[in-house]
Amino acid sequence: MKDIAMEIPTYEDMLAAHERIKPHIRRTPILTSDYLNELSGAQLFFKCENLQEPGAFKVRGASNAVFGLDDEQAKKGVATHSSGNHALCLSYAAGRRGIPCNVVMPRTAPQAKKDAVRRYGGTITECEPSTSSREETFAKVQAATGGEFVHPYNDPRVIAGQGTCSKEMMEQTDGLDMVVAPIGGGGMISGTCLTLSTLAPEVQIIAAEPEQADDAYRSFKAGHIIADDAPETIADGLKVPLKDLTWHFVSNHVSDIMTASEEEIIDAMKITWKYLRIVMEPSCAVPLAIILKNKDRFAGKRVGVVVTGGNVDLDKLPWTLK
Amino acid sequence: MKDIAMEIPTYEDMLAAHERIKPHIRRTPILTSDYLNELSGAQLFFKCENLQEPGAFKVRGASNAVFGLDDEQAKKGVATHSSGNHALCLSYAAGRRGIPCNVVMPRTAPQAKKDAVRRYGGTITECEPSTSSREETFAKVQAATGGEFVHPYNDPRVIAGQGTCSKEMMEQTDGLDMVVAPIGGGGMISGTCLTLSTLAPEVQIIAAEPEQADDAYRSFKAGHIIADDAPETIADGLKVPLKDLTWHFVSNHVSDIMTASEEEIIDAMKITWKYLRIVMEPSCAVPLAIILKNKDRFAGKRVGVVVTGGNVDLDKLPWTLK
Repeated sequence: MKDIAMEIPTYEDMLAAHERIKPHIRRTPILTSDYLNELSGAQLFFKCENLQEPGAFKVRGASNAVFGLDDEQAKKGVATHSSGNHALCLSYAAGRRGIPCNVVMPRTAPQAKKDAVRRYGGTITECEPSTSSREETFAKVQAATGGEFVHPYNDPRVIAGQGTCSKEMMEQTDGLDMVVAPIGGGGMISGTCLTLSTLAPEVQIIAAEPEQADDAYRSFKAGHIIADDAPETIADGLKVPLKDLTWHFVSNHVSDIMTASEEEIIDAMKITWKYLRIVMEPSCAVPLAIILKNKDRFAGKRVGVVVTGGNVDLDKLPWTLK
Repeated sequence: MKDIAMEIPTYEDMLAAHERIKPHIRRTPILTSDYLNELSGAQLFFKCENLQEPGAFKVRGASNAVFGLDDEQAKKGVATHSSGNHALCLSYAAGRRGIPCNVVMPRTAPQAKKDAVRRYGGTITECEPSTSSREETFAKVQAATGGEFVHPYNDPRVIAGQGTCSKEMMEQTDGLDMVVAPIGGGGMISGTCLTLSTLAPEVQIIAAEPEQADDAYRSFKAGHIIADDAPETIADGLKVPLKDLTWHFVSNHVSDIMTASEEEIIDAMKITWKYLRIVMEPSCAVPLAIILKNKDRFAGKRVGVVVTGGNVDLDKLPWTLK
């Protein structure tokens, strides 16, 4: 039986991660909008991780894993399965270190994502879009390459890396009352919990989730992990379930999980594009969606909002598909 | 006869403008993209004026004009004619000072622009979309209100305000070889000339213009102002002609004017949205378009690019209309 306690990353791991990854990531800006403040009644501080070079916060955890490998393991590279930003970001980080990165992706993954993985030097092995095919394919790839498995979120190195984002947020603002971040597998939220529970335990951590993929919300209420099979939501980065490590942080440190409908998410996304003038994914709009539908909860507060990624298909924007 | 020499703003006017407007504008971030650097062969520094609260650099000149008024004139407010960002930004600045702003706009102006003017507290008087109707309507409005006329670009207070943008660029980078900005009436380019000709005369200033509205290019080659009547281009902020004050700066300090086709502009716009992950207007894409089509000219150089504005209709993105 796996001993979870041994794997839980510490505040010192996060500090070490920040030193390790600083040359490889951006200290992304925090943007504000007087109009969105007026609309919400809160003071919103948007931490723009969409402005990372590969377009997502996941470059933090991926870089921490890649640059933490010893030279011997590094020669064999890294391996993962992901159809999303983790695949891009791990390929990007491995490319910067000049080591192999093998990614198992469903053949149905968006072409733009596949192109980006290859542009960064990653090698793709396609599988069928099912859990069994993915696991079988991944086992073969890992056996053949010896690449170090870096899970998209349930990995202490990844969580410690993601935790550097809220450290920067606290440095870049004069204090916050709350941080709101989207929740899928829970990597960003866990990193936020890791950092703030030591650095600023007074800050409330709120997770934002699509109604149509509300497994984390139901897990939080039930007190144990509930994993859905294949939820469908426009916020495609948030379909994956919690795992033991991320559940540890969510169950111990998150103040609340709140949900938004597909329409509320699309509206919040469009409002952010229009008034903050950034390109961001539907997943990143879930925090603003829950803030706007629960104004009483956030009114008068200083609220940090994590904008998690900006890799969208510009030919298929959700409001043009309505 | 008007004495132009008396009206030419000085470097000291620009410095005074910066002090005056600092509380009312953002020191916008400079964003970079390794991918766009690789694609162009240059080192590009994007000064993101689209991230100003009202979404355009024009808030600089408008704020300088509004906050430079004496109290007596301020009571009567300001007035202008514009269908674009100057109207929004003058309304925004006047709103911050709490003074009236009267704007004459063609009835055919985009609804989103009209809504924004009203949201900031401006009063719109509609005219027909013709020069004669605009002039007649504006004369009536100004006679009735006594509002101080603030021209969108041919105004020394406006040019001095726009000049603060390149001052910030020089402070935010470790030196530049060139600055590229779009040219319409020439307000931003003139401000850039005003500032850099004193602060960093070694920096080349390149103006970027749509082929389909290349009156500044032809003026530059001919040595005198050529004004077209009604050019048509996707870069709708760049349809207006040079005037005496902006011609002074363009003819004395601009190194070159280069043009791009509609397709090149749309491609550069989409590339910037995708890799820089910002929402910006077609006008702002003209600089990248000319850089990508004249790579030899920019290779190995440190190039500042002014991203002038981000007020676009998200329902009508040009690549979805192709």
